[in-house]
Amino acid sequence: MSTPKKMAIIVHSGSMDKLIPVLMLASTGGAMDVDVHLFFTFWGLNALKKGGFEAAKLPGDMSISTEMMKEMMKKARVPTLTDMLKMCRETKKVKIYACSTTMEIMGVKKEELIPEVDDIVGAASFLSIALDSDVQLFI
Amino acid sequence: MSTPKKMAIIVHSGSMDKLIPVLMLASTGGAMDVDVHLFFTFWGLNALKKGGFEAAKLPGDMSISTEMMKEMMKKARVPTLTDMLKMCRETKKVKIYACSTTMEIMGVKKEELIPEVDDIVGAASFLSIALDSDVQLFI
Amino acid sequence: MSTPKKMAIIVHSGSMDKLIPVLMLASTGGAMDVDVHLFFTFWGLNALKKGGFEAAKLPGDMSISTEMMKEMMKKARVPTLTDMLKMCRETKKVKIYACSTTMEIMGVKKEELIPEVDDIVGAASFLSIALDSDVQLFI
Repeated sequence: MSTPKKMAIIVHSGSMDKLIPVLMLASTGGAMDVDVHLFFTFWGLNALKKGGFEAAKLPGDMSISTEMMKEMMKKARVPTLTDMLKMCRETKKVKIYACSTTMEIMGVKKEELIPEVDDIVGAASFLSIALDSDVQLFI
Repeated sequence: MSTPKKMAIIVHSGSMDKLIPVLMLASTGGAMDVDVHLFFTFWGLNALKKGGFEAAKLPGDMSISTEMMKEMMKKARVPTLTDMLKMCRETKKVKIYACSTTMEIMGVKKEELIPEVDDIVGAASFLSIALDSDVQLFI
Repeated sequence: MSTPKKMAIIVHSGSMDKLIPVLMLASTGGAMDVDVHLFFTFWGLNALKKGGFEAAKLPGDMSISTEMMKEMMKKARVPTLTDMLKMCRETKKVKIYACSTTMEIMGVKKEELIPEVDDIVGAASFLSIALDSDVQLFI
Protein backbone atom coordinates (compact mmCIF):
# COMPACT_ATOMS: atom_id res chain seq x y z
CA MET A 1 0.00 0.00 0.00
CA SER A 2 1.36 3.40 -0.97
CA THR A 3 1.48 6.36 1.41
CA PRO A 4 -1.40 8.78 0.78
CA LYS A 5 -0.53 11.99 -1.02
CA LYS A 6 -0.48 15.19 1.04
CA MET A 7 -1.63 18.74 0.26
CA ALA A 8 -0.95 21.84 2.39
CA ILE A 9 -2.77 25.12 1.71
CA ILE A 10 -2.09 28.44 3.41
CA VAL A 11 -5.42 30.27 3.38
CA HIS A 12 -4.43 33.93 3.61
CA SER A 13 -7.43 35.46 1.88
CA GLY A 14 -10.89 35.71 3.39
CA SER A 15 -12.80 36.66 0.25
CA MET A 16 -15.41 34.35 -1.26
CA ASP A 17 -13.67 34.02 -4.63
CA LYS A 18 -10.60 32.58 -2.88
CA LEU A 19 -12.42 30.47 -0.29
CA ILE A 20 -14.28 28.64 -3.08
CA PRO A 21 -11.11 27.15 -4.64
CA VAL A 22 -9.72 26.43 -1.15
CA LEU A 23 -12.72 24.30 -0.17
CA MET A 24 -13.18 22.87 -3.66
CA LEU A 25 -9.56 21.69 -3.76
CA ALA A 26 -9.84 20.43 -0.18
CA SER A 27 -13.07 18.47 -0.67
CA THR A 28 -11.86 17.11 -4.02
CA GLY A 29 -8.52 16.16 -2.51
CA GLY A 30 -10.18 14.51 0.48
CA ALA A 31 -12.45 12.50 -1.84
CA MET A 32 -9.30 11.39 -3.72
CA ASP A 33 -7.84 10.10 -0.45
CA VAL A 34 -5.33 12.94 -0.20
CA ASP A 35 -4.41 14.17 3.31
CA VAL A 36 -5.39 17.84 3.20
CA HIS A 37 -4.11 20.45 5.67
CA LEU A 38 -5.61 23.95 5.64
CA PHE A 39 -3.87 26.71 7.60
CA PHE A 40 -6.09 29.79 7.96
CA THR A 41 -4.01 32.91 8.58
CA PHE A 42 -4.42 36.71 8.35
CA TRP A 43 -7.69 37.62 6.53
CA GLY A 44 -8.37 33.91 6.13
CA LEU A 45 -8.92 33.57 9.87
CA ASN A 46 -12.20 35.49 9.51
CA ALA A 47 -13.64 32.51 7.66
CA LEU A 48 -13.13 30.34 10.74
CA LYS A 49 -15.15 32.64 13.00
CA LYS A 50 -18.73 31.53 13.61
CA GLY A 51 -20.74 32.53 10.52
CA GLY A 52 -17.51 33.44 8.73
CA PHE A 53 -17.92 31.32 5.60
CA GLU A 54 -21.52 32.53 5.16
CA ALA A 55 -20.41 36.17 5.52
CA ALA A 56 -17.52 35.98 3.02
CA LYS A 57 -17.85 38.45 0.16
CA LEU A 58 -16.23 39.09 -3.22
CA PRO A 59 -13.23 41.43 -2.80
CA GLY A 60 -13.14 45.23 -3.08
CA ASP A 61 -15.63 46.90 -5.42
CA MET A 62 -17.00 43.52 -6.45
CA SER A 63 -18.48 42.89 -3.00
CA ILE A 64 -21.84 44.24 -4.24
CA SER A 65 -21.97 41.31 -6.67
CA THR A 66 -21.63 38.69 -3.93
CA GLU A 67 -25.29 37.68 -3.89
CA MET A 68 -25.37 37.50 -7.69
CA MET A 69 -22.36 35.18 -7.65
CA LYS A 70 -24.09 32.98 -5.06
CA GLU A 71 -27.13 32.80 -7.34
CA MET A 72 -24.95 31.86 -10.31
CA MET A 73 -23.28 29.12 -8.27
CA LYS A 74 -26.65 27.80 -7.13
CA LYS A 75 -27.94 27.72 -10.70
CA ALA A 76 -24.84 25.76 -11.76
CA ARG A 77 -25.47 23.38 -8.83
CA VAL A 78 -22.14 24.24 -7.21
CA PRO A 79 -22.33 23.68 -3.45
CA THR A 80 -22.13 26.66 -1.07
CA LEU A 81 -19.04 27.20 1.08
CA THR A 82 -20.92 25.78 4.07
CA ASP A 83 -21.83 22.66 2.09
CA MET A 84 -18.28 22.29 0.80
CA LEU A 85 -17.00 22.50 4.39
CA LYS A 86 -19.37 19.67 5.31
CA MET A 87 -18.13 17.64 2.33
CA CYS A 88 -14.55 18.23 3.51
CA ARG A 89 -15.39 16.92 6.99
CA GLU A 90 -17.19 13.88 5.63
CA THR A 91 -14.04 12.71 3.85
CA LYS A 92 -12.29 12.72 7.27
CA LYS A 93 -9.13 13.69 5.36
CA VAL A 94 -9.23 17.49 5.73
CA LYS A 95 -7.61 19.09 8.78
CA ILE A 96 -8.33 22.72 9.61
CA TYR A 97 -5.85 24.86 11.54
CA ALA A 98 -6.18 28.41 12.84
CA CYS A 99 -2.99 30.51 12.91
CA SER A 100 -2.07 31.30 16.52
CA THR A 101 -0.19 34.51 15.66
CA THR A 102 -3.14 35.90 13.69
CA MET A 103 -5.43 35.13 16.64
CA GLU A 104 -3.16 37.18 18.90
CA ILE A 105 -2.87 40.09 16.44
CA MET A 106 -6.61 40.21 15.72
CA GLY A 107 -7.58 39.44 19.32
CA VAL A 108 -9.65 36.42 18.33
CA LYS A 109 -10.49 33.87 21.05
CA LYS A 110 -10.84 30.12 20.65
CA GLU A 111 -14.55 30.28 21.59
CA GLU A 112 -15.22 32.50 18.59
CA LEU A 113 -14.08 29.82 16.14
CA ILE A 114 -16.26 27.20 14.45
CA PRO A 115 -16.09 23.68 15.94
CA GLU A 116 -14.58 22.31 12.70
CA VAL A 117 -11.19 23.80 13.69
CA ASP A 118 -8.92 20.88 14.57
CA ASP A 119 -6.08 22.84 16.11
CA ILE A 120 -4.51 26.24 16.68
CA VAL A 121 -0.90 26.22 15.51
CA GLY A 122 1.97 28.52 14.58
CA ALA A 123 3.90 28.98 11.34
CA ALA A 124 6.60 26.47 12.33
CA SER A 125 4.11 23.64 12.86
CA PHE A 126 2.44 24.28 9.56
CA LEU A 127 5.71 24.66 7.69
CA SER A 128 6.75 21.21 8.94
CA ILE A 129 3.62 19.77 7.32
CA ALA A 130 4.14 21.74 4.10
CA LEU A 131 7.78 20.65 3.76
CA ASP A 132 6.55 17.10 3.66
CA SER A 133 3.64 17.65 1.25
CA ASP A 134 3.18 16.86 -2.43
CA VAL A 135 1.25 20.06 -3.12
CA GLN A 136 1.62 23.41 -1.35
CA LEU A 137 -0.40 26.45 -2.23
CA PHE A 138 -0.78 30.00 -0.89
CA ILE A 139 -4.29 31.24 -1.56
CA MET B 1 17.29 9.82 -19.76
CA SER B 2 15.61 11.52 -16.82
CA THR B 3 11.88 12.21 -16.67
CA PRO B 4 11.10 15.84 -17.50
CA LYS B 5 10.19 18.08 -14.58
CA LYS B 6 6.55 19.10 -14.22
CA MET B 7 4.91 22.39 -13.20
CA ALA B 8 1.21 22.92 -12.43
CA ILE B 9 -0.24 26.42 -12.09
CA ILE B 10 -3.79 27.27 -11.01
CA VAL B 11 -4.58 30.57 -12.75
CA HIS B 12 -7.29 32.10 -10.56
CA SER B 13 -6.67 35.75 -11.31
CA GLY B 14 -7.54 37.45 -14.57
CA SER B 15 -5.63 40.70 -14.04
CA MET B 16 -2.67 41.62 -16.24
CA ASP B 17 -0.17 41.81 -13.38
CA LYS B 18 -0.85 38.15 -12.53
CA LEU B 19 -1.16 36.85 -16.11
CA ILE B 20 2.32 38.18 -16.88
CA PRO B 21 4.09 35.92 -14.33
CA VAL B 22 1.82 33.01 -15.35
CA LEU B 23 2.86 33.17 -19.00
CA MET B 24 6.44 34.16 -18.21
CA LEU B 25 6.87 31.15 -15.93
CA ALA B 26 5.09 28.92 -18.46
CA SER B 27 7.13 30.02 -21.48
CA THR B 28 10.36 29.91 -19.48
CA GLY B 29 9.48 26.48 -18.12
CA GLY B 30 8.56 25.18 -21.57
CA ALA B 31 11.87 26.44 -22.97
CA MET B 32 13.63 24.59 -20.13
CA ASP B 33 11.89 21.37 -21.20
CA VAL B 34 9.53 21.39 -18.22
CA ASP B 35 6.01 19.98 -18.76
CA VAL B 36 3.78 22.93 -17.89
CA HIS B 37 0.08 22.61 -17.05
CA LEU B 38 -2.04 25.75 -16.69
CA PHE B 39 -5.53 25.46 -15.18
CA PHE B 40 -7.57 28.64 -15.74
CA THR B 41 -10.33 28.95 -13.15
CA PHE B 42 -12.63 31.67 -11.74
CA TRP B 43 -11.49 35.16 -12.91
CA GLY B 44 -8.68 33.50 -14.80
CA LEU B 45 -11.16 31.94 -17.24
CA ASN B 46 -11.77 35.41 -18.73
CA ALA B 47 -8.25 35.32 -20.15
CA LEU B 48 -9.17 32.27 -22.22
CA LYS B 49 -12.12 33.97 -23.91
CA LYS B 50 -11.40 35.32 -27.39
CA GLY B 51 -9.56 38.62 -26.94
CA GLY B 52 -9.20 37.92 -23.22
CA PHE B 53 -5.45 38.27 -22.86
CA GLU B 54 -5.49 41.53 -24.84
CA ALA B 55 -8.28 42.92 -22.65
CA ALA B 56 -6.67 42.05 -19.29
CA LYS B 57 -6.14 45.08 -17.05
CA LEU B 58 -4.26 45.97 -13.88
CA PRO B 59 -6.47 45.28 -10.83
CA GLY B 60 -8.80 47.70 -9.02
CA ASP B 61 -7.89 51.39 -9.03
CA MET B 62 -4.71 50.65 -10.96
CA SER B 63 -6.68 49.67 -14.08
CA ILE B 64 -6.27 53.21 -15.43
CA SER B 65 -2.50 52.60 -15.57
CA THR B 66 -2.83 49.50 -17.77
CA GLU B 67 -1.75 51.22 -21.00
CA MET B 68 1.18 52.87 -19.23
CA MET B 69 2.33 49.48 -17.96
CA LYS B 70 2.06 48.07 -21.48
CA GLU B 71 4.25 50.94 -22.72
CA MET B 72 6.80 50.29 -19.97
CA MET B 73 6.90 46.61 -20.90
CA LYS B 74 7.33 47.43 -24.58
CA LYS B 75 10.19 49.83 -23.81
CA ALA B 76 11.90 47.10 -21.76
CA ARG B 77 11.37 44.72 -24.71
CA VAL B 78 9.23 42.38 -22.63
CA PRO B 79 6.83 40.46 -24.91
CA THR B 80 3.08 41.11 -24.69
CA LEU B 81 0.77 38.47 -23.18
CA THR B 82 -0.28 37.46 -26.71
CA ASP B 83 3.36 37.01 -27.72
CA MET B 84 4.13 35.07 -24.54
CA LEU B 85 1.20 32.76 -25.28
CA LYS B 86 2.68 32.11 -28.74
CA MET B 87 6.07 31.41 -27.16
CA CYS B 88 4.38 28.93 -24.81
CA ARG B 89 2.78 27.09 -27.71
CA GLU B 90 6.01 27.00 -29.69
CA THR B 91 7.72 25.04 -26.92
CA LYS B 92 4.99 22.37 -27.29
CA LYS B 93 5.37 21.82 -23.55
CA VAL B 94 2.59 24.06 -22.21
CA LYS B 95 -0.91 22.62 -21.83
CA ILE B 96 -3.85 24.96 -21.25
CA TYR B 97 -6.98 23.81 -19.43
CA ALA B 98 -10.25 25.65 -18.82
CA CYS B 99 -12.09 24.86 -15.56
CA SER B 100 -15.39 23.12 -16.35
CA THR B 101 -17.10 24.28 -13.13
CA THR B 102 -16.22 27.93 -13.79
CA MET B 103 -17.61 27.61 -17.33
CA GLU B 104 -20.89 26.39 -15.87
CA ILE B 105 -21.04 29.11 -13.19
CA MET B 106 -20.16 31.92 -15.61
CA GLY B 107 -22.20 30.45 -18.47
CA VAL B 108 -19.21 30.36 -20.83
CA LYS B 109 -19.42 28.11 -23.89
CA LYS B 110 -16.62 26.20 -25.55
CA GLU B 111 -16.97 28.26 -28.75
CA GLU B 112 -16.14 31.43 -26.80
CA LEU B 113 -12.69 30.13 -25.85
CA ILE B 114 -9.45 30.68 -27.77
CA PRO B 115 -8.24 27.70 -29.87
CA GLU B 116 -5.12 27.35 -27.69
CA VAL B 117 -7.24 25.64 -24.99
CA ASP B 118 -6.23 21.96 -24.95
CA ASP B 119 -9.00 20.65 -22.75
CA ILE B 120 -11.87 21.49 -20.41
CA VAL B 121 -11.42 19.68 -17.11
CA GLY B 122 -12.60 19.67 -13.49
CA ALA B 123 -10.74 20.17 -10.23
CA ALA B 124 -10.11 16.44 -9.74
CA SER B 125 -8.34 16.05 -13.09
CA PHE B 126 -6.11 19.01 -12.44
CA LEU B 127 -5.37 17.99 -8.86
CA SER B 128 -4.13 14.62 -10.16
CA ILE B 129 -1.62 16.47 -12.32
CA ALA B 130 -0.60 18.81 -9.50
CA LEU B 131 -0.06 15.95 -7.03
CA ASP B 132 2.51 14.57 -9.41
CA SER B 133 4.28 17.88 -10.17
CA ASP B 134 7.58 19.35 -9.01
CA VAL B 135 6.21 22.87 -8.78
CA GLN B 136 2.63 23.91 -7.95
CA LEU B 137 1.50 27.50 -7.76
CA PHE B 138 -1.79 29.32 -7.20
CA ILE B 139 -1.70 32.66 -8.99
CA MET C 1 23.39 13.70 7.36
CA SER C 2 20.30 14.53 5.34
CA THR C 3 20.17 17.30 2.72
CA PRO C 4 18.46 20.42 4.07
CA LYS C 5 14.92 21.07 2.88
CA LYS C 6 14.42 23.88 0.37
CA MET C 7 11.68 26.51 0.03
CA ALA C 8 11.20 28.87 -2.94
CA ILE C 9 8.80 31.81 -2.72
CA ILE C 10 7.85 34.14 -5.57
CA VAL C 11 7.04 37.47 -3.91
CA HIS C 12 4.73 39.17 -6.41
CA SER C 13 2.79 41.37 -4.01
CA GLY C 14 4.19 44.46 -2.32
CA SER C 15 1.43 44.99 0.23
CA MET C 16 2.08 44.65 3.95
CA ASP C 17 -0.45 41.86 4.50
CA LYS C 18 1.43 39.67 2.00
CA LEU C 19 4.98 40.67 3.01
CA ILE C 20 4.24 39.60 6.60
CA PRO C 21 3.66 35.91 5.71
CA VAL C 22 6.60 36.03 3.27
CA LEU C 23 9.07 37.10 5.94
CA MET C 24 7.41 35.06 8.67
CA LEU C 25 7.66 31.88 6.59
CA ALA C 26 11.23 32.79 5.56
CA SER C 27 12.49 33.53 9.08
CA THR C 28 10.70 30.48 10.47
CA GLY C 29 12.07 28.31 7.67
CA GLY C 30 15.58 29.65 8.15
CA ALA C 31 15.38 28.93 11.88
CA MET C 32 14.30 25.36 11.02
CA ASP C 33 17.43 24.99 8.87
CA VAL C 34 15.50 25.18 5.60
CA ASP C 35 17.24 26.82 2.62
CA VAL C 36 14.91 29.68 1.75
CA HIS C 37 14.94 31.49 -1.61
CA LEU C 38 12.84 34.63 -2.06
CA PHE C 39 12.34 36.02 -5.57
CA PHE C 40 10.88 39.55 -5.49
CA THR C 41 9.09 40.36 -8.75
CA PHE C 42 6.53 42.89 -10.03
CA TRP C 43 4.94 44.84 -7.11
CA GLY C 44 7.12 42.84 -4.74
CA LEU C 45 10.23 44.57 -6.06
CA ASN C 46 9.11 47.78 -4.31
CA ALA C 47 9.80 46.10 -0.98
CA LEU C 48 13.47 45.73 -1.93
CA LYS C 49 13.92 49.43 -2.60
CA LYS C 50 15.53 51.38 0.25
CA GLY C 51 12.78 52.04 2.81
CA GLY C 52 10.46 49.70 0.93
CA PHE C 53 9.52 47.34 3.74
CA GLU C 54 8.84 50.28 6.08
CA ALA C 55 6.63 51.94 3.44
CA ALA C 56 4.53 48.85 2.64
CA LYS C 57 0.81 49.39 3.21
CA LEU C 58 -2.35 47.30 3.41
CA PRO C 59 -3.89 46.92 -0.08
CA GLY C 60 -6.57 49.11 -1.72
CA ASP C 61 -9.10 50.80 0.54
CA MET C 62 -7.56 49.17 3.59
CA SER C 63 -4.38 51.23 3.26
CA ILE C 64 -5.77 53.76 5.75
CA SER C 65 -5.70 51.01 8.39
CA THR C 66 -1.99 50.31 7.93
CA GLU C 67 -0.87 52.13 11.09
CA MET C 68 -3.61 50.47 13.13
CA MET C 69 -2.44 47.05 11.91
CA LYS C 70 1.13 47.94 12.88
CA GLU C 71 -0.10 48.88 16.37
CA MET C 72 -2.01 45.59 16.65
CA MET C 73 1.10 43.66 15.62
CA LYS C 74 3.22 45.57 18.13
CA LYS C 75 0.71 44.87 20.91
CA ALA C 76 0.82 41.13 20.04
CA ARG C 77 4.64 41.36 20.11
CA VAL C 78 4.91 40.33 16.46
CA PRO C 79 8.14 41.72 14.97
CA THR C 80 7.99 44.43 12.29
CA LEU C 81 8.90 43.62 8.69
CA THR C 82 12.30 45.25 9.23
CA ASP C 83 12.91 43.10 12.31
CA MET C 84 11.76 39.96 10.48
CA LEU C 85 14.18 40.76 7.65
CA LYS C 86 16.99 40.97 10.22
CA MET C 87 15.89 37.63 11.69
CA CYS C 88 15.99 36.12 8.19
CA ARG C 89 19.55 37.33 7.66
CA GLU C 90 20.69 36.09 11.06
CA THR C 91 19.73 32.53 10.13
CA LYS C 92 22.10 32.82 7.12
CA LYS C 93 19.66 30.52 5.31
CA VAL C 94 17.50 33.09 3.49
CA LYS C 95 18.58 34.28 0.03
CA ILE C 96 16.96 37.37 -1.48
CA TYR C 97 16.74 37.84 -5.25
CA ALA C 98 15.46 40.81 -7.25
CA CYS C 99 13.79 40.03 -10.60
CA SER C 100 15.92 41.45 -13.44
CA THR C 101 12.97 41.82 -15.84
CA THR C 102 10.94 43.79 -13.31
CA MET C 103 13.93 46.09 -12.73
CA GLU C 104 14.05 46.81 -16.45
CA ILE C 105 10.29 47.38 -16.75
CA MET C 106 10.10 49.63 -13.69
CA GLY C 107 13.43 51.31 -14.42
CA VAL C 108 14.87 50.38 -11.02
CA LYS C 109 18.66 50.53 -10.62
CA LYS C 110 20.82 48.28 -8.46
CA GLU C 111 21.87 51.22 -6.27
CA GLU C 112 18.23 51.77 -5.27
CA LEU C 113 17.99 48.31 -3.68
CA ILE C 114 18.66 47.44 -0.05
CA PRO C 115 22.03 45.78 0.65
CA GLU C 116 20.28 42.56 1.78
CA VAL C 117 19.68 41.64 -1.89
CA ASP C 118 21.96 38.70 -2.70
CA ASP C 119 21.53 38.69 -6.46
CA ILE C 120 19.57 40.00 -9.43
CA VAL C 121 18.28 37.10 -11.50
CA GLY C 122 15.75 36.23 -14.21
CA ALA C 123 12.79 33.87 -14.23
CA ALA C 124 14.83 30.93 -15.58
CA SER C 125 17.36 31.06 -12.73
CA PHE C 126 14.65 31.17 -10.12
CA LEU C 127 12.61 28.45 -11.78
CA SER C 128 15.65 26.14 -11.62
CA ILE C 129 15.72 26.65 -7.86
CA ALA C 130 11.96 26.17 -7.51
CA LEU C 131 11.98 22.94 -9.55
CA ASP C 132 14.32 21.51 -6.99
CA SER C 133 12.50 22.75 -3.87
CA ASP C 134 10.29 21.01 -1.33
CA VAL C 135 7.94 23.97 -0.99
CA GLN C 136 7.06 26.54 -3.67
CA LEU C 137 4.67 29.41 -3.11
CA PHE C 138 3.44 32.40 -5.09
CA ILE C 139 2.54 35.22 -2.73
